[in-house]
Amino acid sequence: MNGNFVYSNPTRLYFGDKSLDFLKDELAKYGRKIMLSYGGGSIKKNGIYDAVMEILKSSGKEVFEDPGVMPNPTVEKLLEGCRIARENDVDFILAVGGGSVVDYAKGVAVSAWYDGDPWEKYYLKMENPANRILPLGCVLTMVGTGSEMNGGSVITNHEQKLKIGHVFGEELYPKFAILNPKYTFSIPKKQMIAGFFDIMSHIMEQYFSGDDDNTSDYIAEGLMRSLIHSSRIAVKNPEDYEARSNIMWIATWALNTLIGKGKPQDWMVHMIGQSIGAFTDATHGMTLSGVSLPYYRVSMKDAPWKFARFAKNVWDVDCAGKSEEKIAEEGLQAMENWMKELGLCLHIAELGVTEEMFEGIAKGTFLINSGYHKFTKDEIVQILKESM
Amino acid sequence: MNGNFVYSNPTRLYFGDKSLDFLKDELAKYGRKIMLSYGGGSIKKNGIYDAVMEILKSSGKEVFEDPGVMPNPTVEKLLEGCRIARENDVDFILAVGGGSVVDYAKGVAVSAWYDGDPWEKYYLKMENPANRILPLGCVLTMVGTGSEMNGGSVITNHEQKLKIGHVFGEELYPKFAILNPKYTFSIPKKQMIAGFFDIMSHIMEQYFSGDDDNTSDYIAEGLMRSLIHSSRIAVKNPEDYEARSNIMWIATWALNTLIGKGKPQDWMVHMIGQSIGAFTDATHGMTLSGVSLPYYRVSMKDAPWKFARFAKNVWDVDCAGKSEEKIAEEGLQAMENWMKELGLCLHIAELGVTEEMFEGIAKGTFLINSGYHKFTKDEIVQILKESM
Repeated sequence: MNGNFVYSNPTRLYFGDKSLDFLKDELAKYGRKIMLSYGGGSIKKNGIYDAVMEILKSSGKEVFEDPGVMPNPTVEKLLEGCRIARENDVDFILAVGGGSVVDYAKGVAVSAWYDGDPWEKYYLKMENPANRILPLGCVLTMVGTGSEMNGGSVITNHEQKLKIGHVFGEELYPKFAILNPKYTFSIPKKQMIAGFFDIMSHIMEQYFSGDDDNTSDYIAEGLMRSLIHSSRIAVKNPEDYEARSNIMWIATWALNTLIGKGKPQDWMVHMIGQSIGAFTDATHGMTLSGVSLPYYRVSMKDAPWKFARFAKNVWDVDCAGKSEEKIAEEGLQAMENWMKELGLCLHIAELGVTEEMFEGIAKGTFLINSGYHKFTKDEIVQILKESM
Repeated sequence: MNGNFVYSNPTRLYFGDKSLDFLKDELAKYGRKIMLSYGGGSIKKNGIYDAVMEILKSSGKEVFEDPGVMPNPTVEKLLEGCRIARENDVDFILAVGGGSVVDYAKGVAVSAWYDGDPWEKYYLKMENPANRILPLGCVLTMVGTGSEMNGGSVITNHEQKLKIGHVFGEELYPKFAILNPKYTFSIPKKQMIAGFFDIMSHIMEQYFSGDDDNTSDYIAEGLMRSLIHSSRIAVKNPEDYEARSNIMWIATWALNTLIGKGKPQDWMVHMIGQSIGAFTDATHGMTLSGVSLPYYRVSMKDAPWKFARFAKNVWDVDCAGKSEEKIAEEGLQAMENWMKELGLCLHIAELGVTEEMFEGIAKGTFLINSGYHKFTKDEIVQILKESM
């Protein structure tokens, strides 16, 4: 690694099937008024809501309910949350749910006391916060986004057909995250495997960039190997605690800044996927899996050495007597096989993408271009075509 | 991973050849009186002392010098440091040096305001602190111990022939660590390679334990691969920035609790090595390298599967048509070859160990025994014999 950087990660993680026991101690550090943000109500069916409410009540907290956070949280919902937080002068936001709920809670935390338009300031313009920020914590029920230990927050504006993620600084990191692998057991299979690919994509988008020898890439390879191994077990038996706990842990470390340290990062697959999401409201992980193979087959031509390394170190491709290009291609083939085994989306037409959307999706794709291949808007359209 | 655990790591890391630029901002958070702890004076030759002093002075700090921290910091030096800190009522301890200086600074930080005998309370009895603790930070000039991002502190009592490490909680973690790979260029080769093996040992002692499938082991494999690769470059060219920076980063992540999460840990090689250190005052990393091969060849018999995995995933041993035992042995052989290539100590007689010391060293070896083989004192003596 050759770069200069700062690493600091203040989130405290409580991990394991007893981790909710620590919620009470954490809440004691904050004020009495708690805003409880959650999604569509699945936590009421699986008992998590009751368990959390019991702790809130026995801690003497006043709870302000904020249900209905959708999978791709909208600007409208963000503004509603800001009203609840501000009108009730809440002291703390407790997000109970997956990455969407945590992303949303960060949006409310930074926007509630901002007097202007938060969409414009914090997402369109990605400005730094100067107003009061509310502290937040989370009880995670779904894995993938890594939002439990970073400053990232993705919000969707359907009117503008934009889905934008702002990576805020430490002040927006959750103060704590409760990670109980058992809470992820009841997620529908489609959401589960979409989350698995979201994790894989986070790792790959940090891995496939940079020309130096960088320890971060070796850590990334370890995380990918563990994810592939455990995902194959989990897809057959979603209640395999060992596999689900490994995956929960990998998700956190895939996107808490560690494996991107000291190197450039790609993130183009996320840019395309998010733009698809703005047009279709499709499940995030599936928008990524849908475009990844065509995307990486283009990218591979600019850095066959890195894709050959990926094939060997991540997929155990037998390299004897093969050219670098051949090894690289076999790596992506192994990945394709794994994606089929899990049941991931490989055709974005299934997500509701139509040819008429291509130009709009390409226009909404922010060209970061710090990966191996520098993409043009036309090439994005080409990838969308091949992804159909 | 099957366990319950908490992960929290409050140390802020500044990494890279410009990292000292951040010292001023960090010092601004603390009081005026700074205790400056360092070792034998090498920092005065290589310019680091002057650079740090300039920042301290331009920050308006009052500096209380505390030089002379030895490679294995003694109880006597600890008490001297406590006197300096307390008599001058210092606000902050800035450790400039390697792991020994940082370990020592933590000892002073926790002991300065303790009225009793700190050796007895914090090392012999390993009690939790209840007194005032001074905050500390560090500018690292040598890598290996990982002390820059954990709560560990090892102190030696020559009179009692004991070298004991206490792993304190978060309150003893450095508030910040400045990691400039260039500062490690001027370390004598023997100290450099000893540090490399210290890192390897930290990783192996967390890796070689536990029967579950654990993401931590996959991360450990990545770190070991990167360490082996970069150490081979660094031993030929100690000023290879890329290799030295990778190694500096690996050292931190090898012992900041991450790769031990959710699993048991061994640490018997450190227990034996520390006991050798108490008898001989030998370089820490060399006491570890000296006993490791005999140690792991015993341990291997109880978990050939894990050593075969180590051979394949860390050393790229060709496994085709070989038994698990054979693969496992070839892994340790590859490690031995690497150790010889670096020039590590493989015979503890070279460190001043004599047969008369065996019983005493074994007696001073704390039998943690959470690795694969449960060792008796007699077996420790046997390992010492084979390590001569």
